[in-house]
Amino acid sequence: MTSNPNSPARGELELVRRLRDLLSPGSAHGTTLIGFGDDMSLLDATPPPLLWTVDMLMDGVDFDSTRHPWRAIGRKAMAVNLSDCAAMATVPVAALCAVALRNSLSMDDALDLVHGAHEYGLTFQCPIVGGDTNSWDAPTVVSICIAARCEPGGRPVGRDGARPGDRIWLTGRVGGSLLGRHMTFEPRIATALQINRRLAPHAMIDISDGLALDLARILEASGCGAVLEEKALDAVIHPDADRLSTQDRRTPRDHALQDGEDFELIVVLPADAPADECERLQLLPLGTMVGEDGLWLATSGGQREPIAIRGWEHFR
Amino acid sequence: MTSNPNSPARGELELVRRLRDLLSPGSAHGTTLIGFGDDMSLLDATPPPLLWTVDMLMDGVDFDSTRHPWRAIGRKAMAVNLSDCAAMATVPVAALCAVALRNSLSMDDALDLVHGAHEYGLTFQCPIVGGDTNSWDAPTVVSICIAARCEPGGRPVGRDGARPGDRIWLTGRVGGSLLGRHMTFEPRIATALQINRRLAPHAMIDISDGLALDLARILEASGCGAVLEEKALDAVIHPDADRLSTQDRRTPRDHALQDGEDFELIVVLPADAPADECERLQLLPLGTMVGEDGLWLATSGGQREPIAIRGWEHFR
Repeated sequence: MTSNPNSPARGELELVRRLRDLLSPGSAHGTTLIGFGDDMSLLDATPPPLLWTVDMLMDGVDFDSTRHPWRAIGRKAMAVNLSDCAAMATVPVAALCAVALRNSLSMDDALDLVHGAHEYGLTFQCPIVGGDTNSWDAPTVVSICIAARCEPGGRPVGRDGARPGDRIWLTGRVGGSLLGRHMTFEPRIATALQINRRLAPHAMIDISDGLALDLARILEASGCGAVLEEKALDAVIHPDADRLSTQDRRTPRDHALQDGEDFELIVVLPADAPADECERLQLLPLGTMVGEDGLWLATSGGQREPIAIRGWEHFR
Repeated sequence: MTSNPNSPARGELELVRRLRDLLSPGSAHGTTLIGFGDDMSLLDATPPPLLWTVDMLMDGVDFDSTRHPWRAIGRKAMAVNLSDCAAMATVPVAALCAVALRNSLSMDDALDLVHGAHEYGLTFQCPIVGGDTNSWDAPTVVSICIAARCEPGGRPVGRDGARPGDRIWLTGRVGGSLLGRHMTFEPRIATALQINRRLAPHAMIDISDGLALDLARILEASGCGAVLEEKALDAVIHPDADRLSTQDRRTPRDHALQDGEDFELIVVLPADAPADECERLQLLPLGTMVGEDGLWLATSGGQREPIAIRGWEHFR
């Protein structure tokens, strides 16, 4: 188009042209051919099956463009999708990125947003290979769709395989992510793949909406309940949850149970999973799956109390 | 979750639950397994390669929720993606749907939106198999990502294969889609597949941003120019372009060249493509590819005039 005398020199065409230049390193990666500049992008990963997922982030809800640099926002938009890959123990392959940019955004900000997503994806060999650029007068929206494959001989880990007697583990401490970790977390892909290779997990999920709410999703899908041990629960409280609780009236434990966007994994393993492997992967024990419905706390005093299934929920 | 005494009965969880019920017919279709209720959806289409694309629609820009029913809006969100499949002569397989719902939307409106997309996708054997639900205080956004395959022995048709001497055709008349057709158009998938089987097309694109702008994309990708014949151009002007021109100061020809969202296909065929096949597929001739850059009108008087490459462009 640059050689075309009738062509406009700015606007969406220019943005797409600059994105294409920016994203061209993606073409170097084996399984995917760049599709920028066609109506669809080629997605050729073997062996099948492929899996795919989408996550949409909105300014003022999932990030704050008055506080966060656009590059960091792009990174988060990619990272939440990579975390979905981790949740199912899959290997990310490629991504599409659709944006609705607020009209007041500069070209550089728009490029930073997509570049931030792309360069973070590349650290997982997951380039952006296509997308859709739009603008409007409302706050910016970014939606990334990611495709992933299984490891050779591997299988995707769902939510519905948990059984009474299974043990519940976390890949890290939770709570208070709002203090900053929700923008900078590392998707647990490497850990998830190792868990899937060595520990035959029965169910996994990433904590996007809160430990209680996301664990409840496993309970619903698997048709059982869970008992968390008080001491174990207190041991997975992140220091940020303590810090945040000094700023509001909520306890550190409530932050650990109900704060969204920790992006650690809840991992359900058979009771006889080798303890040394769990330790080597730095998994933190949390409790046990039970046959009766519900989510419960087993107190140190020997009581069983219900845990509120509350967390981040859209469209209340 | 319904059996869980601690569970909330409304909000996002309830929306997702109702969506799952609504979308379950998708599981009946062969190539795709339903993934609602997991972190990713299975996408298992053979043979490879797969292609994928994404389109994002925003309230007040691509549709007007004060005028259009939510079901029709969902239909359009799916149809623009299906049109991308048509543009490359691919067969749609499955879709993901991400939404940012304005908080004031009712549950029924939200369901209508997704259901409208899903039921229209099903008419092309392309169910929604997963997605992401969000809400916020700004206007509603819907983003659909679609995956498609080639026909056995077929190949996807790109934008970069046009050569000087090739003939340019349209699958239908264009202009004035704003009067209503932008919400009700039929993606040209069946025609595109027949063209790909019988006519060995060199390049194709669907008209989303305007005949001039989208044809220019083929010119850029293929590195050549095009001359449209005045009589042929006037013959592809849709009656809606005439009607709209009585309401504004633009000519019917300008509407035909610059109006977006016609979703007819621009088809570039070798000069010796069989005329009877073109006629049987009701293709409309438009002009010829040339070696020199630019987009030109060959007037009936024997002049050659430049055509402005103008159309719908975001982020101006």
